[in-house]
Amino acid sequence: MLQNLKEEVYRANLSLVEHKLVKLTFGNASGIDRKTGFMVIKPSGISMRDSGPDDMVVTDLSCNVVEGDLLPSTDAPTHAALYKAFGTIGGIVHTHSASATAWAQACRPIPCLGTTHADYFHGNVPVTRSLTREEIAGNYEYNTALVIVECFREMDPLRIPAVLVASHGPFTWGGDVTQAVLHAISLEEIARTAALTLSIAPVGPIDQTLLDKHFFRKHGQGAYYGQKK
Amino acid sequence: MLQNLKEEVYRANLSLVEHKLVKLTFGNASGIDRKTGFMVIKPSGISMRDSGPDDMVVTDLSCNVVEGDLLPSTDAPTHAALYKAFGTIGGIVHTHSASATAWAQACRPIPCLGTTHADYFHGNVPVTRSLTREEIAGNYEYNTALVIVECFREMDPLRIPAVLVASHGPFTWGGDVTQAVLHAISLEEIARTAALTLSIAPVGPIDQTLLDKHFFRKHGQGAYYGQKK
Amino acid sequence: MLQNLKEEVYRANLSLVEHKLVKLTFGNASGIDRKTGFMVIKPSGISMRDSGPDDMVVTDLSCNVVEGDLLPSTDAPTHAALYKAFGTIGGIVHTHSASATAWAQACRPIPCLGTTHADYFHGNVPVTRSLTREEIAGNYEYNTALVIVECFREMDPLRIPAVLVASHGPFTWGGDVTQAVLHAISLEEIARTAALTLSIAPVGPIDQTLLDKHFFRKHGQGAYYGQKK
Amino acid sequence: MLQNLKEEVYRANLSLVEHKLVKLTFGNASGIDRKTGFMVIKPSGISMRDSGPDDMVVTDLSCNVVEGDLLPSTDAPTHAALYKAFGTIGGIVHTHSASATAWAQACRPIPCLGTTHADYFHGNVPVTRSLTREEIAGNYEYNTALVIVECFREMDPLRIPAVLVASHGPFTWGGDVTQAVLHAISLEEIARTAALTLSIAPVGPIDQTLLDKHFFRKHGQGAYYGQKK
Repeated sequence: MLQNLKEEVYRANLSLVEHKLVKLTFGNASGIDRKTGFMVIKPSGISMRDSGPDDMVVTDLSCNVVEGDLLPSTDAPTHAALYKAFGTIGGIVHTHSASATAWAQACRPIPCLGTTHADYFHGNVPVTRSLTREEIAGNYEYNTALVIVECFREMDPLRIPAVLVASHGPFTWGGDVTQAVLHAISLEEIARTAALTLSIAPVGPIDQTLLDKHFFRKHGQGAYYGQKK
Repeated sequence: MLQNLKEEVYRANLSLVEHKLVKLTFGNASGIDRKTGFMVIKPSGISMRDSGPDDMVVTDLSCNVVEGDLLPSTDAPTHAALYKAFGTIGGIVHTHSASATAWAQACRPIPCLGTTHADYFHGNVPVTRSLTREEIAGNYEYNTALVIVECFREMDPLRIPAVLVASHGPFTWGGDVTQAVLHAISLEEIARTAALTLSIAPVGPIDQTLLDKHFFRKHGQGAYYGQKK
Repeated sequence: MLQNLKEEVYRANLSLVEHKLVKLTFGNASGIDRKTGFMVIKPSGISMRDSGPDDMVVTDLSCNVVEGDLLPSTDAPTHAALYKAFGTIGGIVHTHSASATAWAQACRPIPCLGTTHADYFHGNVPVTRSLTREEIAGNYEYNTALVIVECFREMDPLRIPAVLVASHGPFTWGGDVTQAVLHAISLEEIARTAALTLSIAPVGPIDQTLLDKHFFRKHGQGAYYGQKK
Repeated sequence: MLQNLKEEVYRANLSLVEHKLVKLTFGNASGIDRKTGFMVIKPSGISMRDSGPDDMVVTDLSCNVVEGDLLPSTDAPTHAALYKAFGTIGGIVHTHSASATAWAQACRPIPCLGTTHADYFHGNVPVTRSLTREEIAGNYEYNTALVIVECFREMDPLRIPAVLVASHGPFTWGGDVTQAVLHAISLEEIARTAALTLSIAPVGPIDQTLLDKHFFRKHGQGAYYGQKK
């Protein structure tokens, strides 16, 4: 079942390794089929180089395995809860890519310091609050999604398709898992460049007009970047 | 038409990816044919790995498409205006390469801290002023060229074949697009080394005599670097 | 003799080069066969690209060569003494990987700043005291093991499978040499990310509850990361 | 003539590119044949990827071309003067590798912060004084050698086989050009690690006993690193 989605999720997971966003087995990508409500996710602790599309695991949004011989990623409850909370997204990526993780570990949002950032994220990339000891000791992976959702109460997840979980690392998402990978790549690049920028001079975020210009020339009704569809 | 130039512009765009100056579709290269006044430029939002020389777009300097099925880069008006203002240049490159972009985001010129810099750029690499809100909301890409040209009122663009657009990233140019790529590579290298240098010790620019020596042993009438032509 | 272990040790040494943890001939990996008490170790000053499994050297724990035409790594006495002191480990890796070495040279333990660290190391990665002049002038390589063992008087080496030798570089270990390589890769990654984190903001170690959660979801009786064995 | 030396010098130049110490045409390697007093050096401004051993240029120590169709590196007078001053060396390498160049641009010697450094360089890697305006305007490349030689009045060039030319970049040397390349690789690695170390904590150079131990276990009469010769 969901053969195309398995292929896409597998390629997404492999792509994270090829783009050097994932070392060893740190990280995972998933996609959702909104018709059935099933998600396809990387199996836990498995290297993509040793597996294929049919090793991807199909679960429902309570994380019960619907198809597949392997156990799903331990982060499956985070993915499932995000799919429930954010009805417009179709794919999620979690990595421990070095620069984005450094910002997450520093518990600092990534300020929008330039147009590369504005091309993908319509404002600062937020950082969650720390989980409480009760949240960690309890349903940890599910609670990780809750602190993410808290951050987005007043924000559209498709305008800021990324978050930093405090002391942990980034999650990104998009209309599908391929977009989520694209956002993981651009997030790492802007995280790296932002740290380097601030080591040169202590600048603040760019003007809202420039932020809007770059974001909206690529996204939404008035977009004129790229080819006509 | 302009088949040789299309090949050269295509190879230049591909080379930016191979030298890791361009990730995803961040960046573009163009070349001009001064006889016809037409420029050849990368299509918008297209990956070089999936295209070829015939996908390059030919436009006039008002950015009307003369030949090609795809839309030109959204930055085409910046390229066109630079070709009009700088009559001696034949190729332009725009990237978001990490270190040069960090200096652009920091809104600081790259000081000439050593001979590697002096071999390519005869002085500090300047940073433009920020665009006003009116300039951003108006003809943004054209106005980007205007702030670049403002910077070069008193400078020869072939002596400093690069600029940092504030809060955005670098543009480089040269006698042809192949030289513009060479300048993009060396700019990224000197931007990276300058940031590292200043993290070690707060030095200032090198002496004018050393700057002149290195620049002029490679460029102009008394040059003695390289092979006889 | 010990053909399988030679293969595994050879592949481990090669893997250190492939993961860019070892440049030139900086670094070595070994494994022990607890039945015979013999260890298999990289030969001294030999590039892995020019050798094979049969060039690995078999020694006893007094570093007498039992089999092999080449001299063992000069660090063999360090490895042997660690195998004697830490009865539960089966493999050891020593590298001069850049970020872990920088922490070792800075004589600072690597604080646990996030969950990537906590997934592999149950607390800060310690740094040894400096060796005394007498220890350096005497049986230096053996004494290097002694200062490591001193650090672990109150710690389980399988919970913190890494150490930084002051002014020198990292050693890692594990149940076998393949695990020791995995720990060398993750150590370098967390060392790099920790330095970048602290350049962004001066944060302290993560809460013990989060540290325990991540370590124990991967290790020990209650672990639920990865596939069932 | 000197066919073996041409092969070795060509391979050395190619190796600098492969190890990413040289970008574009920044850098050069040479070797000397002490019997004839001729040196073999890279041609000026030529990419190694487009050439072969027979493109290497043979000159005497006054830099007159003895054999070869191409002009020698513009830095040939620096190499020649170093061969005259340092009678024990057989090969020289000059690069603009990023980290070593950053130290050179910062006009700071690289302190010996650990054993990786001590394995190759018996003390801090010195930085020359700046050349005077007269020295720059005069026989610049020859005068570059003079300031290097000044630095080594009280030092054995085989114990510290590297120098940083202020505001310029590193030169390394060795018994032959292959060793000079090895020293260029290790210099870049220790330069990178030293900068990272000092960004973590402001430590000073290691103790002389540890420096001596590491240097002399690899070099000289009592050396016991590597295989018997």
